[in-house]
Amino acid sequence: MKILYIFAHPEPKSFNSAMKEAALETLNEQGHEVKLSDLFSTGFKPVLDRHDFLQPKRTDVFNPFMEQMNASKNGTFSTDIMNEMEKVTWADMLIFQFPIYFTGFPSMMKGWIDRVFAAGFAFNPATGNMYETGLLKGKKAMLVMTAGADEALYSKEGAHGDINELLRYITHCTFEYTGLEVLHSHIVFGAGKMSEERARSEISSYMDRLRSLAQHE
Amino acid sequence: MKILYIFAHPEPKSFNSAMKEAALETLNEQGHEVKLSDLFSTGFKPVLDRHDFLQPKRTDVFNPFMEQMNASKNGTFSTDIMNEMEKVTWADMLIFQFPIYFTGFPSMMKGWIDRVFAAGFAFNPATGNMYETGLLKGKKAMLVMTAGADEALYSKEGAHGDINELLRYITHCTFEYTGLEVLHSHIVFGAGKMSEERARSEISSYMDRLRSLAQHE
Repeated sequence: MKILYIFAHPEPKSFNSAMKEAALETLNEQGHEVKLSDLFSTGFKPVLDRHDFLQPKRTDVFNPFMEQMNASKNGTFSTDIMNEMEKVTWADMLIFQFPIYFTGFPSMMKGWIDRVFAAGFAFNPATGNMYETGLLKGKKAMLVMTAGADEALYSKEGAHGDINELLRYITHCTFEYTGLEVLHSHIVFGAGKMSEERARSEISSYMDRLRSLAQHE
Repeated sequence: MKILYIFAHPEPKSFNSAMKEAALETLNEQGHEVKLSDLFSTGFKPVLDRHDFLQPKRTDVFNPFMEQMNASKNGTFSTDIMNEMEKVTWADMLIFQFPIYFTGFPSMMKGWIDRVFAAGFAFNPATGNMYETGLLKGKKAMLVMTAGADEALYSKEGAHGDINELLRYITHCTFEYTGLEVLHSHIVFGAGKMSEERARSEISSYMDRLRSLAQHE
């Protein structure tokens, strides 16, 4: 498969970075073609604003939705967005890896979504292209996350509640909305206080999961 | 009441900005003291990274959680974060106004949460300060949002599902987690295609809601 690996952690020596390195190695070994979007190390611009549009439809007032629709039609997004869109178009599968901040994306990763999953590119409310007819139909997506919290906090009976339910705003309203087929999320809980042994074991489990991608998913 | 109004929309001529202006006027008229954090117009830094910490605990490796705990103890966050924290501490109520992007905060607003609701300031897993004992206990919070989507899409039977359920990752896992009492969200649907008449009517409804704050909430 062609896999786009989107990664957002600011520290190269972090457990997240170790997971990412192991993932890239494993996916390559399995014969996948992999492209990486390492958002912190490349200084990705994290906020959607008027500078995202090289030939704005209107210069007197900035309407993000209207400008995205216009830029999708004319291919006039800023270069960094066009590059990411090209990678999304190329890919059969998108893997998003990040540490959970407040039951969701760190702002850096959210910025990638806000800017790259643009109206007219990933979905189109004007033509009704969403969900079954979302513009990324035929591709898959998977969330890979670390959480400082223990699994109990994110269980059905826990204080937060069931994490897979809580993340439906991503898996359903964002990914399935754009037509992506969503694979089961891979989550490492209690990531703030891991022994080296557990870290190795978690990375090994993640590599196993990645090895099973081509076969089962 | 002392109200901190946190606002994230990039365009001063937008409907969101008109709502914000009407809100500030109404809250002042009602005798509230109001401080504004206008994230786009002030160029708020939207991403948590090592530059948030003036005297890092470790310089060889950046661990966001550990650095937040350390900076909360010592008051060594960067000045922009310290300023926001001071406003949060001052406030009885936080109002967050933004356009919904992918059933959540725009990355700019998420960055404010990631950076300002820091470990050790808003919650503390080490001491168990969360939910009933969250560090922002005694304060209130309200989401004020515009959505391009129609209300039907975000209803229980709609393709997205019930928006109040979907937003529990914010209202419960973020706000209640930090001890905030959450008021009912104020949402304007179909905000992408409003007549001037409806825009006026929506702003008027929002002003009514704000006028009722002191009495009922």
